[in-house]
Amino acid sequence: MACGEFDLIARYFDRVKSARRDVVMGIGDDCALLSVDEKRLIAVSTDTLVSGIHFLPTISPADLGYKSLAVNLSDLAAMGADPAWLSLALTLPEMDENWLAAFSDSLFEQLDYYGMQLVGGDTTRGPLSLTLTIQGLIPAGRAILRSGARIGDWIYVTGTLGDSAAGLAVLQDRLMVAAAPDRQYLLERHLRPQPRILQGQALRDLASSAIDLSDGLISDLRHILDRSDCGARIHLEDLPYSTALRRQVSPDQALRWALSGGEDYELCFTVPEINRGALDVALGHAGADFTCIGQIGPRSEGLQLLRDNQPVDLDWHGYDHFSRE
Amino acid sequence: MACGEFDLIARYFDRVKSARRDVVMGIGDDCALLSVDEKRLIAVSTDTLVSGIHFLPTISPADLGYKSLAVNLSDLAAMGADPAWLSLALTLPEMDENWLAAFSDSLFEQLDYYGMQLVGGDTTRGPLSLTLTIQGLIPAGRAILRSGARIGDWIYVTGTLGDSAAGLAVLQDRLMVAAAPDRQYLLERHLRPQPRILQGQALRDLASSAIDLSDGLISDLRHILDRSDCGARIHLEDLPYSTALRRQVSPDQALRWALSGGEDYELCFTVPEINRGALDVALGHAGADFTCIGQIGPRSEGLQLLRDNQPVDLDWHGYDHFSRE
Repeated sequence: MACGEFDLIARYFDRVKSARRDVVMGIGDDCALLSVDEKRLIAVSTDTLVSGIHFLPTISPADLGYKSLAVNLSDLAAMGADPAWLSLALTLPEMDENWLAAFSDSLFEQLDYYGMQLVGGDTTRGPLSLTLTIQGLIPAGRAILRSGARIGDWIYVTGTLGDSAAGLAVLQDRLMVAAAPDRQYLLERHLRPQPRILQGQALRDLASSAIDLSDGLISDLRHILDRSDCGARIHLEDLPYSTALRRQVSPDQALRWALSGGEDYELCFTVPEINRGALDVALGHAGADFTCIGQIGPRSEGLQLLRDNQPVDLDWHGYDHFSRE
Repeated sequence: MACGEFDLIARYFDRVKSARRDVVMGIGDDCALLSVDEKRLIAVSTDTLVSGIHFLPTISPADLGYKSLAVNLSDLAAMGADPAWLSLALTLPEMDENWLAAFSDSLFEQLDYYGMQLVGGDTTRGPLSLTLTIQGLIPAGRAILRSGARIGDWIYVTGTLGDSAAGLAVLQDRLMVAAAPDRQYLLERHLRPQPRILQGQALRDLASSAIDLSDGLISDLRHILDRSDCGARIHLEDLPYSTALRRQVSPDQALRWALSGGEDYELCFTVPEINRGALDVALGHAGADFTCIGQIGPRSEGLQLLRDNQPVDLDWHGYDHFSRE
């Protein structure tokens, strides 16, 4: 995910000279969608993780192996795709066998869990970074795009929000958590996010749009609104928090992290009224927690944050994603 | 392309826990081959280029945009694939609009030439590096693998060898070339290698194996021999050199660069006796230069370098690829 000024860079690459007929979706969603035959689409997504920017230099190789793939899987989840193939480009400052063994064990454990195969890649010397290109398969016509939200659709998120930002704060000594179980839970949520693959697949015929929450609810929901040409009302009192987060931080801090903390890798999706019953059944079968947090409205109303149905004006400093509002 | 000790790293990733039936070729060839329907295969290849390792930090953005894609296309050429889709991960130390404009113009010019589309990627801040994942299409059953060479097959290369290494030497002031046309030619061969896409496609039904020359003839041919379980005899007097290279360096230097200089991005391929006539016609139609340089032999004979049919024992220092012999 590009962010901040690096969004600008994407503009240099968002041009199509030769529009191929087999490219159903190019740049602009969680994945590109490629058509090879009439039955299935291939979903492709690329993520780069650079040491010191996307992960702390102190991260363990096992956590890095896990998280780099989980982040990439999350993009597939947001389209409703079945994970299939991975290409891994790994740049390392030096040959370190212990590091490589731990990293690759962790990576392959997750690949195996999802029935994926590593099909290629490249290993080079240089400052630590990784680029993963993941591919998945989706039955033709059933991919969930960012652009399908319509006025009146209900807005949902899976799981709980803000935990990952709290876990990062623990790692950086910005948040002190004495209770070991809460500390462990928040760290896990940051280091071992669960890609919502099953949920994404269950949403294929039910959700009108979806995105994964990498930058924070406000920033990511805005992508849905932009692509769908809609507005939204979010009921702040309905945002789902974990028990650990509620116990360890103030309600105000929890709200900030839920809205703009980033890296939760939950799904945010919209569902038409007519599909709400089926949604309860489908996600119930998947054993997945999900919460309705608002409703899609007309573009003219923008993105409104409400508490007890009253507009809330949040004035926060230091939250870039939000301040771009 | 991994090289040197970084070959070791690949071993950590060359394991298959869940072997997917749709993976026709995993790690171990120029591209992975993925099967989506019964008619076509997808060829996928990933290359990372790191500043100071894969390209000089002084390279122009236009040359970098060209070469990074050309190198990636060369892997498709070696399988006989039709170029289709590109994912680009670009890590930049800073936002530089002039750099980005020149880089992306150059990239899109070549994408357009090959009828390709950029379908996704990622832009991040960090030390300059690029990872490209390229995908192409091949009719099912017609991909050219490294593993198909058989005893008696003839060994060919496209174009001329050693020019790229000479061009790099010019850039690094290790080779002085006063004649402007020769200098320009050698620089172009290093900075603007021509991926042999048309040649690869023409070879689909004719060649028994192929690889692209990224590390140098000896090192790359050895991959064919390893995968095909064969040996080879190379006739050194038959190696093709450009007029510029012959004019500017000694025969001994030209030979070294041809065998182990690397980055020529020509194809090395093998052809059964029965296909030699058809080869002349097919590559003649493509307007491509190609030269027979030897013949595949039994594994027990290893890789033999001959001059006037006599074994040549080359004792060079400082040529890693060759010294690994």
